[in-house]
Order: sequence, then structure tokens, then C-alpha cells
Amino acid sequence: MWVRNAWYVAAWSHDVSHAALLPRTIINQPLVLYRKADGSVVALEDRCCHRLAPLSKGRLEQDDLRCMYHGMKFAADGRCIEIPGQDLIPPRAAVKSYPVVERGSWIWVWMGDAGLVDATLIPETIATTDAGWHIKTGYLDYAAHYQLINDNLLDLSHLSFVHEKTLGRNMPQWAGQRPQVTRLDRGVRFQRWFENRPHAHYYGREGETYDLWHSYDFLVPGIFIQRPAWYPPGTAKRMNMQPPTEPPLFVRCDDQAVIAETERTSRYFYATGARSTDATVALADEMFRFTETAFHEDKAIIEAQQKVIDLDPDQPMMSLSSDAGPNLFRGIVKQLVDAEARPPQPARVAEPVALAAAQGN
Amino acid sequence: MWVRNAWYVAAWSHDVSHAALLPRTIINQPLVLYRKADGSVVALEDRCCHRLAPLSKGRLEQDDLRCMYHGMKFAADGRCIEIPGQDLIPPRAAVKSYPVVERGSWIWVWMGDAGLVDATLIPETIATTDAGWHIKTGYLDYAAHYQLINDNLLDLSHLSFVHEKTLGRNMPQWAGQRPQVTRLDRGVRFQRWFENRPHAHYYGREGETYDLWHSYDFLVPGIFIQRPAWYPPGTAKRMNMQPPTEPPLFVRCDDQAVIAETERTSRYFYATGARSTDATVALADEMFRFTETAFHEDKAIIEAQQKVIDLDPDQPMMSLSSDAGPNLFRGIVKQLVDAEARPPQPARVAEPVALAAAQGN
Amino acid sequence: MWVRNAWYVAAWSHDVSHAALLPRTIINQPLVLYRKADGSVVALEDRCCHRLAPLSKGRLEQDDLRCMYHGMKFAADGRCIEIPGQDLIPPRAAVKSYPVVERGSWIWVWMGDAGLVDATLIPETIATTDAGWHIKTGYLDYAAHYQLINDNLLDLSHLSFVHEKTLGRNMPQWAGQRPQVTRLDRGVRFQRWFENRPHAHYYGREGETYDLWHSYDFLVPGIFIQRPAWYPPGTAKRMNMQPPTEPPLFVRCDDQAVIAETERTSRYFYATGARSTDATVALADEMFRFTETAFHEDKAIIEAQQKVIDLDPDQPMMSLSSDAGPNLFRGIVKQLVDAEARPPQPARVAEPVALAAAQGN
Repeated sequence: MWVRNAWYVAAWSHDVSHAALLPRTIINQPLVLYRKADGSVVALEDRCCHRLAPLSKGRLEQDDLRCMYHGMKFAADGRCIEIPGQDLIPPRAAVKSYPVVERGSWIWVWMGDAGLVDATLIPETIATTDAGWHIKTGYLDYAAHYQLINDNLLDLSHLSFVHEKTLGRNMPQWAGQRPQVTRLDRGVRFQRWFENRPHAHYYGREGETYDLWHSYDFLVPGIFIQRPAWYPPGTAKRMNMQPPTEPPLFVRCDDQAVIAETERTSRYFYATGARSTDATVALADEMFRFTETAFHEDKAIIEAQQKVIDLDPDQPMMSLSSDAGPNLFRGIVKQLVDAEARPPQPARVAEPVALAAAQGN
Repeated sequence: MWVRNAWYVAAWSHDVSHAALLPRTIINQPLVLYRKADGSVVALEDRCCHRLAPLSKGRLEQDDLRCMYHGMKFAADGRCIEIPGQDLIPPRAAVKSYPVVERGSWIWVWMGDAGLVDATLIPETIATTDAGWHIKTGYLDYAAHYQLINDNLLDLSHLSFVHEKTLGRNMPQWAGQRPQVTRLDRGVRFQRWFENRPHAHYYGREGETYDLWHSYDFLVPGIFIQRPAWYPPGTAKRMNMQPPTEPPLFVRCDDQAVIAETERTSRYFYATGARSTDATVALADEMFRFTETAFHEDKAIIEAQQKVIDLDPDQPMMSLSSDAGPNLFRGIVKQLVDAEARPPQPARVAEPVALAAAQGN
Repeated sequence: MWVRNAWYVAAWSHDVSHAALLPRTIINQPLVLYRKADGSVVALEDRCCHRLAPLSKGRLEQDDLRCMYHGMKFAADGRCIEIPGQDLIPPRAAVKSYPVVERGSWIWVWMGDAGLVDATLIPETIATTDAGWHIKTGYLDYAAHYQLINDNLLDLSHLSFVHEKTLGRNMPQWAGQRPQVTRLDRGVRFQRWFENRPHAHYYGREGETYDLWHSYDFLVPGIFIQRPAWYPPGTAKRMNMQPPTEPPLFVRCDDQAVIAETERTSRYFYATGARSTDATVALADEMFRFTETAFHEDKAIIEAQQKVIDLDPDQPMMSLSSDAGPNLFRGIVKQLVDAEARPPQPARVAEPVALAAAQGN
């Protein structure tokens, strides 16, 4: 169960080049990515239409891609432009071409109907090249269904337990308090103030406390965009617990994408950093390493959870009050998936009978 | 196909402690075991009712167990007693608790209906702490259906072939003679005399022979209890081939349990030893090592057998006269499984009509 | 989907002996092979009729095979001739015996109905012991359906791409020209002249060109027999592009067999060499090593192709003009498989009505 009409992160910008072919699997569809000579990114079906061999084992010839099984050559738009030993190229000789947008250091690929492409659905994320930020990037591969990873990011109460020694250190509030949860058009927004929280490994002084405005969006298909902002103590109350209108002391950034590959494999992309006015490159590096350690804690519990589920897939989950986010998001995904499964409706037209009556008058 | 209403061996006593959580899977159900501070053993469902994460990756807090995903805490009886950030604990917030009995160095867990628990079904086995015996223990994990391992133990004719260099050395009688096979209430008993058998590696003198009273029970779900007893030659005849009434020269003990984990994985627990009046600790150790070597011979043939079966699961087996035990036991298991699948019958009551008629007279 | 009534290569002659039991799986059937004392080869079902243990883990006793689980002994024709501890041997106590022919250094096993055995279906291949040839042999195991390997061998246009640095070096003609494809009774024949081809690593002089008569048969279930023959330039034209009638300068030999084991595993046997008048043993060795390197290139692309197919088994293949061979052969296989699935027809008899009429006169 996955949404097709959505932008999926296929890779970090720096992982795609004109010198190599990058194979990726997204929602069970094989893709091959590369850059043309002009730097633009191409995403084609990684499955030759002839004998279904992967084109990612083929050869880039200028901007075209040749299958190195029997030699069919495809243009960057997916059309076959050469069949060795055969003059006629049938029109159906083609592989699927996917719409691609490169933005914010991510390669976004539209996995659904080309007629529904909508670039405004791509959220703003921070590029690694943004001079205003020091950012580091990475990814982890999961042997788990993407929904379990989404659930994890939609309920940060787990920080007090899974990450009690890392991200959630000295912060029982992650589990003890509930954020305000708001439904967005294709996602969920989480907002809350943490008052008087102690310093973190990346900001603050031992013994002092801070108010932390914690806000993030989680968007279809699994994009996590978080900008925690540190304030002097008392700010939360002065703002009446509403979103802050004052400049923060420190802002960190976490951009993440949970990408379903198959029913039991997923890739988790992530970037962590801070404003370049707030942090040195060395500190941003340390923030990243610390965060990545925590992500291995998530992977351990989620892959274990997957195994328990697979032992008896009929066992139901039980919702707690902390599941507002996961439940809301699972509902949004279900709505979108159901809508995609329905046959398209014809555009509404005036009824012939009414028209005839009008003409008759 | 497995019996639920039965005691399964979950672990050796010495493998369960207050310091660690022991995960086990029995008949496809995940369990976590630990000891309370008072030493008593707890067996809970190893699957949090919230998000189905394994509790065995959680944390023991006194006698309670906290899930380290989102922090739900469960008492030793399985009831949830804390949900971080949530005051109300719904009554259905609980994990299954399994009846446990610790006896004879084994942790026995009742996998079926709690209302049918019957501790008298637990057979007598010898504890490693029993001063009358020197015993050593171990286990092996199989990639095979438990029934194939049961079959193996229910037909010891294989000793002459699988174990021709170990347990069955110089003993073609294992395959050449048939034991008396008796159906028990939930198991099968095997009895026979071996007359004039040569000495074994653990008893007897080269060149001399002995009469061996060989007797064992095999009980649901897969418990093997064997007490071979050595006698001077001529004893079997003097006893008219009936069970011996005289004190033996030497008695060994073999307590074993075949435990189904999943459809294709099983754990085989075993203890081997002898009366402390008959054997030194060193000899008991040697008996154990020798026996364990033989168990690897069983594992090799049974896992190979499983692969052949999986290649074509429709191939039928053909019974020989040596299959009286396996067939009887498979029948008992089938009866129990079928009975468990039937809806429970109401207690029989006199029919209202008959009653009325009786009153009318 | 596989043909049963066919000869399958089970092993190289030198891999079967009286000293060891060789297990093989062919079209999902387990086989055990060995030689009798007289050197003749036996192929039995590798699955004891008793408990389905593999006989290949058993023991050869003279020419008989004893199962080393419970000791049943089978004669070389598959009949059980001993059951330990049991006097009566039921007639159905037997394992399947497979017709075997040893020819051309291969052990051929008939996998179908014994009543349809036809040794004339075994093609002529060159024995490693043939004094007229220097031959070397090997095999590779594939994690792929046999049909994908057959397809590969039925369309050598892939040589220009998969093997552009090995077998297809400097030979775009492999893909650029089409051979003449002829349907045989149970196979396909490929024939063509390559005019003015450059020298190969194993024959010819740098800077000179040759005419190459390239001809091979591909026979059910997957037997590849190729005899490329080198001629002076101009020969092809002098022969009017028909099969050559003059003695060649050099002949190489490639005998190969694609053997389906299971739905996703196959074994690929191959021999490569040249006439002993044309090549030294050292050159034949070098030809073999070079060819085997190329076979690893095939394995890489075919196993990758299999993975792409398994990601979405419903994706259709698209035929090119180079697929005449694969399509013809797939059709032949389908016909044979369909015919095997039909119930056998009774012999045609005169119609009852006509008979009655004849009697009425």
C-alpha cells in the first residue's frame, strides 16, 4: 500500500553523475538515474523493454543509455533510438521515463501518472550548498515496511525510550507531553514548546535551561522537515505558548525522507545541521554523528518490530494518545491510495435532458 | 499443526535470570522470560500491545517490564501499569501472560488456554542439582519441523544407521528387534530387553556382555524420558522378559524436549548423565559429549530430510513395522489438535422436555 | 514449466564413481548417481520411500544403496531388498529408477515416462577422451530460471554487448546480422557466414581476415552444440553463402547443457576445445579459460535480469527480430509441455456405427 502520485526522494544530488548509472527501487519499481552532459538528471525504468534486463548494467553513450544485454539504445526520454541489426523501431519500444526535479540537494522523482505531476508538492528543504547552513547527509537501509518508519517519526514520544541516551537524554517530556497535531493537506504538523529544557550536546550551557520551540511537518510519502529553535527561558510563556515571533538563539535542521523500496525494504535519507551563524562545521559534523547513532537505535527496534509482526501479521496494534500523528497520517495515505485505485471520473457536464429542454424553450 | 494445551520447555533453569530478558518463540508465539526478584519465573508475550515491538528489547524495572519503544510498562501478570503521558490505562492494555512451572531444571510454559492448566501433566525429570545424579545439559537448534525430530526419537531403529559409530555402535539390535510399544494417555511407552549386549563406552568391560532394560516414554508435545538400566547377563530371561524388579548395575538418564518454534525451526533440549553412585563427574561429562556428537548426526540427516520434503511436499511417507511409535504419536497429536479446533461443548444437562415429562408423571 | 520426456545432463562422466554418491536435482526431482562395480551408471530417486531422507547420505554396499536413516536397502533398479527387523518387503517399497545413458562424456538421464525412452534423442557431442579433440570441461550454477539461460544461447546477438571484450570482441556482426534460423524436430538450427572477420584470440593472424562458418543447434531441453569453422577469405562467396563443402582451417567445439534444477536454480555444463590437429593442449586450455570468463559475464546479466523479473513478474517481454530463435524454441517447449499435460489418447479404432452398419448388411 503506497501512494503513487507523489514525489519520492531517489538520491542525494551528489550521488548522481554523468559518469555512472545509479540503480534504485522505489515502491517496487526499478529505476536507473544519471545526469546528462548538461547536468540535468534523468530517471528511467531500470528494465529494458526487450528482455527485462536492468539498464543500470548498461552503458551511457552521450546522454543516451544502451542496454548491454542485446544493445537496444534509449534516449533520455525513454524512447528506443537504436536496435542493432533491425531497421524498424516499433513505437512501443520504450522504457518509462519519470519526471525528475532536483531541489534542496535531493533528486525528487514522480512515481505516478505523468499527467498529474505537480512540482508545488515538493517541500522546501535545505541544500547542502546553502551558505546559511552547515549540513551533513547520509542514509540507512531498513529491512522493514516504510510505514513502521513513518510511524516512528510521527510519534516522537519514543525519544524518551529508544533514544534515552542520545536524542532524548534528560528529556522525559518527549513522552510525557503531547504536541499540538494539525492535519495539513498531504501531511501532519507537530508543534509544541518545551519550557525550561536543559542544554543539549549541541547547544546550551550546563546548568542553564532554555525554551525550545519544536516544530516539524511530516508529508506524503514520508518527508520529515524539522526546525527546532532555542529561546531564552520564559519565551514560551511570553508567546502564550503560540509559535514564536522572536529570533531564536539557535536553530537546527533535520530533513529526512522515508522511501519505500519493496514491501520489506526501505531507504531512510537524512540531513542534519545548524545555521552557519550558530554552529561551526565541526559542531555540525558532531551533531550529525550523534544523530546518526540515534538512527541506528531506531533501526534496531523497528527491524525487531517487523520480525514480530511477520511472525503473526494478524495481530492488531493498539492506539495510545501519542498515536494521533501516526493515525492521522495512515488515514491520509489510505485516502490517497484509495483515490488512486478508483477509476478516473469523467469531467462533469450539463445533462443532455436539461440542455434539450433549454433548447426547446 | 501443534498442540496448544500442553507444557512446553522454554529454557533451562540456569538460562533465566533477573538480570536479563530471554526471548523465545514457541509454536509461533513470541515469549519473553525473566525472573522476578523473588526468583520466580515470568513468561510474557514478547510483543507490546501498542506497536508490537518485542518487550525482550525492553527494560526490567523491579519485577515489571517496560517496552523501550514508547515506554509502556507491564506488571509481571501482563497488565499495563503505565503509559507515559497518558493517565487513562484501558483495560485491554495488556500482554498475554503464560503459566509457568519450574521443575526438574526446566522452565515449563503452558501455551494454551489458561483455564485448562494442569500441572500434573508435567513429567518427572531429573534436576541438574539432584545429588543422586551427575547430569549435563545442552540444546541444538534445528532448521526443521518438530514432527521430524519427534519421529526420530519415536523410532530408535535409526541408532544402528545414523549412529552406527556412536550411540548404536555394535548394536544392530536397535534396528533388528522391535520394542513393546504402549499407548499412554498423552504419549507412547517403549520397553524391551537387549540380552547379551556388549559393553558401551560408558559402562561395562570389553569382552563381557550385559542385559540392558531399555525403557522410555515420549510425551506430548515432544518430551523424551529414558532410563536405560544395565543388568548381569541372564537377568532378562529370569524376569521372563518383563520389567526388572532387581536393582540394576548402572542407570543412565536422558531427558530431552523437542520444542516447535515455527513451521521450520525447532529447539532440542537435552540432558544426559548417570547415577552419582555409578559414575564420576568426568564419566558423566564424557557420556554427554559422546551423546551430543550423536545429536549432530541426527541434525544432519533430519535437516537434509526436511529439504527433500520441501522440494515436493506432496510425497507420501511409507510406514514400516518400526513406525508403530511415530504413527501412534502422530495420531495422538492429531486427536489433540482436532479437539482444540472444535468449539467447546456446553456441559451436558438433562433435556427440558424429558424433565417436563418426568414432572408430568 | 519444463519438458519431462527428455534427456537431461546430470553430470560429467568423471564426476560419477563407485566411491561416492552424487546428489543432483533436475526439474525439481532429487536424484542420486553412482557407478556400479562394472562401471555402469545408476540414477535413483534421492528420496527414501520410508521417511523421505536423501539416499545420497546413504551408503553404497556393492551395487546396492542403503539409506542411512533407518537402513532400508535398495537394489540398483530401485527395488527395496532389505528392511532391517522386518521380513516382509511390500512391493511398493521402492524408489524411482531413471534410465541413464553415458555418451560423449555426459551422463544423460531420462526424466519422463520410462515407456517413452528414446536414446536416439541424445545428440552427438565430443567426449573428452576423443583423440581427435582437445577439450576441457566445467560448469556454473545459476540463480535463475533455465529459460533465461536458454534465451541467452538462442540469440547470440548478445555477444556484441555482454561479451564485447571477450567472445564478441571486434565483432559487431553478432548483433548487426541475423543468422538463418531453422526449426528442427525438437530444436532450432542457426547458420551463417561471417565474411572477413578479424582473427580471434585462438585463431588467425593479426591484420588478416577469415570467413567463419558459424553453425549450432539448440535442442530440448537446453543442449547447445556449436562447431565454428574457419576458412580463407572468399570461401563464403565461393559457397554462395551455403554450408561449406571444403575442409576448414580450424574448427572449435562448444558443447553445453542448460539444466533446470528448480524454478530459480539451474546448472550450466560446458566443454570447449578444438581439433587436436588445429590446437595444442595449451591453446585448448586458453580457449576454455577465455570462454569461461565470458560465461561469468552471462551469469551476471542473467541473474540481474531474473531479479528485475521477480520484482514484477507480470511485465511482458518485447520481441525483436533477433528473437526468432528464442521464440521458436519457447514454442517448441510449450508444445511438448502441453502435450505431456494431455491425457494419453486411446489408439484410433473404427467407429461403432460404421461397424454396426457393416454387420447389418
